[in-house]
Amino acid sequence: MAGEEGVTLESLRKKMADFARERDWDQFHSPRNLLLALVGEVGELSEIFQWKGEVPKGLLDWKEDEKEHLGEELSDVLLYLVRLSDICGVDLGRAALRKLELNALKYPVHLCKGSSRKHTHYSQANEDSDTSAPEGI
Amino acid sequence: MAGEEGVTLESLRKKMADFARERDWDQFHSPRNLLLALVGEVGELSEIFQWKGEVPKGLLDWKEDEKEHLGEELSDVLLYLVRLSDICGVDLGRAALRKLELNALKYPVHLCKGSSRKHTHYSQANEDSDTSAPEGI
Amino acid sequence: MAGEEGVTLESLRKKMADFARERDWDQFHSPRNLLLALVGEVGELSEIFQWKGEVPKGLLDWKEDEKEHLGEELSDVLLYLVRLSDICGVDLGRAALRKLELNALKYPVHLCKGSSRKHTHYSQANEDSDTSAPEGI
Amino acid sequence: MAGEEGVTLESLRKKMADFARERDWDQFHSPRNLLLALVGEVGELSEIFQWKGEVPKGLLDWKEDEKEHLGEELSDVLLYLVRLSDICGVDLGRAALRKLELNALKYPVHLCKGSSRKHTHYSQANEDSDTSAPEGI
Repeated sequence: MAGEEGVTLESLRKKMADFARERDWDQFHSPRNLLLALVGEVGELSEIFQWKGEVPKGLLDWKEDEKEHLGEELSDVLLYLVRLSDICGVDLGRAALRKLELNALKYPVHLCKGSSRKHTHYSQANEDSDTSAPEGI
Repeated sequence: MAGEEGVTLESLRKKMADFARERDWDQFHSPRNLLLALVGEVGELSEIFQWKGEVPKGLLDWKEDEKEHLGEELSDVLLYLVRLSDICGVDLGRAALRKLELNALKYPVHLCKGSSRKHTHYSQANEDSDTSAPEGI
Repeated sequence: MAGEEGVTLESLRKKMADFARERDWDQFHSPRNLLLALVGEVGELSEIFQWKGEVPKGLLDWKEDEKEHLGEELSDVLLYLVRLSDICGVDLGRAALRKLELNALKYPVHLCKGSSRKHTHYSQANEDSDTSAPEGI
Repeated sequence: MAGEEGVTLESLRKKMADFARERDWDQFHSPRNLLLALVGEVGELSEIFQWKGEVPKGLLDWKEDEKEHLGEELSDVLLYLVRLSDICGVDLGRAALRKLELNALKYPVHLCKGSSRKHTHYSQANEDSDTSAPEGI
């Protein structure tokens, strides 16, 4: 299921559905149960970073077991997200591609390219209109 | 990039990297910046569910624009998660497959299958030992 | 410090500041470190509720040690929130009183009182304008 | 209600209860609804910090309206936390004092005082035993 292109969201969705069905856990996988489980995993992910101050890209100075732990927490968030989407009837892969297109329209290169000031301006504009939309990803 | 099997994590990673590079936004994409952006999106996802009480699987009674909004927020969480993993040097697809294997070892079918009581027992066991590990996914 | 009226935010602020200073932990208490620690605690709080489905007010059927655990996690969120506010130079008590006044103006009784429909309408109005502001608490 | 010592948790609890009752909003204030609303507010709090990189204590270079906005989001988290505790039948002030005592026992000054290394050691110890308990607050 992980070919040349790698792991698909659909393959993870199937694996999570099988995993739950084999254990009779579908009964626990309501949307809000899964959402709270996701929040729990985001909390564990945050704990990894909480006392570190700024962290450089690539985590060059992290120990191997720390990076492994990080991979596990990132995965837990992903797996609950995939499962939550499935239970809600949302095609996560399709939704993500669509969102990327919306983001490209919202943040055209010629307007957004460049300085921190412009980025801040974008964020500021969003804050001014009291929106918490993702600022430019 | 979305073939028979659907959207790959690798394709989303590439798209996010291209998106940031085209806009000179790599400078803002430090691990902790992205993590906080992820937390922000999880907050927006939670807001969709916050006043609804329990929600049935499939969201049968939701309006179409609500489901679309949900798809967008699920996607925002995914996209930041993919980007955070990339910036941290974690192969998210590989990590997720590995985590699924670990979960299968941790929760063998013959021990976990079944009743809410057993599931609760598992959760309870985890709480007793003061761990916040994902309980069975 | 807990008189007739009970525990003040200021007393908790002082205790947290003393606690950190005595252990030379001020060096770790930067705003974003504390924010991520807060997110971690919110995750632990969510884990308590994650597999329970809807939970009745008063938690009548919860065991005593579960309620105690809940009290600890609620406290952890509070204590980091108090500490984060202090480190940011925000008077949390004063800010909360001011926010309550703003909420009273934003949600006048004669407009908001009543049905779920009206409440939903308020939420919907907020969503339509793409705001994620707290809907009336 | 805010005397010499400042704002009490009990006074905020009463104000929130009055606010909800006056608007007939008790019906929406179930434990998990309030918890998800709290998560939503933590998301908004995180958005304030998300693109800033490390932020100095005291937020010396922040504009006044940014600090005001921060005060509002910190307050929203606090108000939902107070309301959630009330609805769950938890005396938040009492619980917080008790948690401070537990923390003092868990992190004795003579063992914890000092270097980042020791603090890291404590965190590490916690991670090794797979606990996500608050590391030293």
